[in-house]
Amino acid sequence: MEEARQSGVIGKLLGSVNSTMRRILFTFMSSGPIPQHIAFIMDGNRRFAKKWKLEEGAGHKAGFLALMSVLKYCYEVGVKYVTVYAFSLDNFNRRPDEVQYVMDIMHEKIEGFMKELDMVNRYGVRVLFIGDLNRLDEPVRVAAEKAMEATAKNTKTYLLVCVAYTSSHEIPRAVYEACQEKSKTNNNDDDGIVDVNDVIKAVDLEKHMYMGVVPDPDVLVRSSGETRLSNFLLWQSNNCLLYSPKALWPEMGFWQVVWGIFKYQRSYYYLEKQKKQA
Amino acid sequence: MEEARQSGVIGKLLGSVNSTMRRILFTFMSSGPIPQHIAFIMDGNRRFAKKWKLEEGAGHKAGFLALMSVLKYCYEVGVKYVTVYAFSLDNFNRRPDEVQYVMDIMHEKIEGFMKELDMVNRYGVRVLFIGDLNRLDEPVRVAAEKAMEATAKNTKTYLLVCVAYTSSHEIPRAVYEACQEKSKTNNNDDDGIVDVNDVIKAVDLEKHMYMGVVPDPDVLVRSSGETRLSNFLLWQSNNCLLYSPKALWPEMGFWQVVWGIFKYQRSYYYLEKQKKQA
Repeated sequence: MEEARQSGVIGKLLGSVNSTMRRILFTFMSSGPIPQHIAFIMDGNRRFAKKWKLEEGAGHKAGFLALMSVLKYCYEVGVKYVTVYAFSLDNFNRRPDEVQYVMDIMHEKIEGFMKELDMVNRYGVRVLFIGDLNRLDEPVRVAAEKAMEATAKNTKTYLLVCVAYTSSHEIPRAVYEACQEKSKTNNNDDDGIVDVNDVIKAVDLEKHMYMGVVPDPDVLVRSSGETRLSNFLLWQSNNCLLYSPKALWPEMGFWQVVWGIFKYQRSYYYLEKQKKQA
Repeated sequence: MEEARQSGVIGKLLGSVNSTMRRILFTFMSSGPIPQHIAFIMDGNRRFAKKWKLEEGAGHKAGFLALMSVLKYCYEVGVKYVTVYAFSLDNFNRRPDEVQYVMDIMHEKIEGFMKELDMVNRYGVRVLFIGDLNRLDEPVRVAAEKAMEATAKNTKTYLLVCVAYTSSHEIPRAVYEACQEKSKTNNNDDDGIVDVNDVIKAVDLEKHMYMGVVPDPDVLVRSSGETRLSNFLLWQSNNCLLYSPKALWPEMGFWQVVWGIFKYQRSYYYLEKQKKQA
């Protein structure tokens, strides 16, 4: 939509005014604390399509555009890590044709994202796919690996895409990996046994979580007013602010990002005040 | 407050009208799905005291009265399990005198609760204390154990009190217990070693969670408008509805319970509708 608006001269003028206003607001906001990491549950694509009597795929397309806007605003205001919940492991239990449909969309969107060179290069985005990638369709997995490789040297901002992910898979997997490590380091061999008294601590688990490569999210946003976590980042949501704007995912944009950060700042100052009083 | 109102004849009349109205509303609500388990983060006692310029202890006293009301309404409407977050393991890092102060209050409140025979017997409440009870002060631990023993035969409703609890303690502890069990059952001896290929699954962890004795909560309520989980029931909040009423904990009562259940019912019907459409 923004491209269309910017096509005319008036459009260009309006676009640059908008962008200037945005920059002023973001500079103002950046004088306060900015969350390092925001995670999003992208909920409401299908409901959006239904609401506007569009075919189902149109909801996902609009959702992809919304993701691009949300990413842009996050990176512009100074958020370094953005995580999105793209596909849950539980979603594999849906009808095979429905799973295939989502796999196809995902494939298309990953390739689409990599063509958004303005986004990827301008913000120096490193893309990471998080989850049991072996469960993905071959073409999707290949596209995901290519995207990770192509952006592996970027360090300015991160986009973490959770696919074939649930916390109830991530946590036991971390347990397994932590046991493996204990068995290797503490017995000085690789006999595959662990002394049960060699206790696995929270810090050992953390190290082996898929999401352990980045700091825990400061804000978790779920669109469409829903307030469930749906097996997403449970271990990491320990002290995270949860925010559920009413907007369906394709309706998400500038104001939801601003409001989410505003809520974070308000809560941050409140907690700081409490700490000082203690 | 309710006792005071009921002291006069008019008070008695009003009380029974209130109670009749409540029963009618609850009967009406019970025609829909009622959450089996509601968990509460009791936030805002100190802010309540400050708001009304009371001494700090008064906030906790008012909070205890609110807990009694909330429990009564939950059990009356048909909620079987109620869990409350009374003291986090992290709270032990506060100043020693502050920790001692909370331990004293907790001791007083546990004994206070056990004297509320009308509550305990009328609703057949079984009390369970959840967490690393060894971290508690001796008198608190003894009082907690007595309360558990005294109510051990009740099965109608449950009150789970999380003390010296955090999820980042509960989860690694479950890992340890699951390893212990694997070592005992699969090696046919008690040599304390685990084969790392003998994978620990989500179901093994679940079995050894402190909270594994009851079903996962359907609704998690945090008072005072705060939307963080603060290391509370992270593993169990997988698919739980989160609700953050504005009321400070001592202000919680009838309407917050009703509204929480109403939100649950609305979300329940919505999910059912989605399932049917799929």
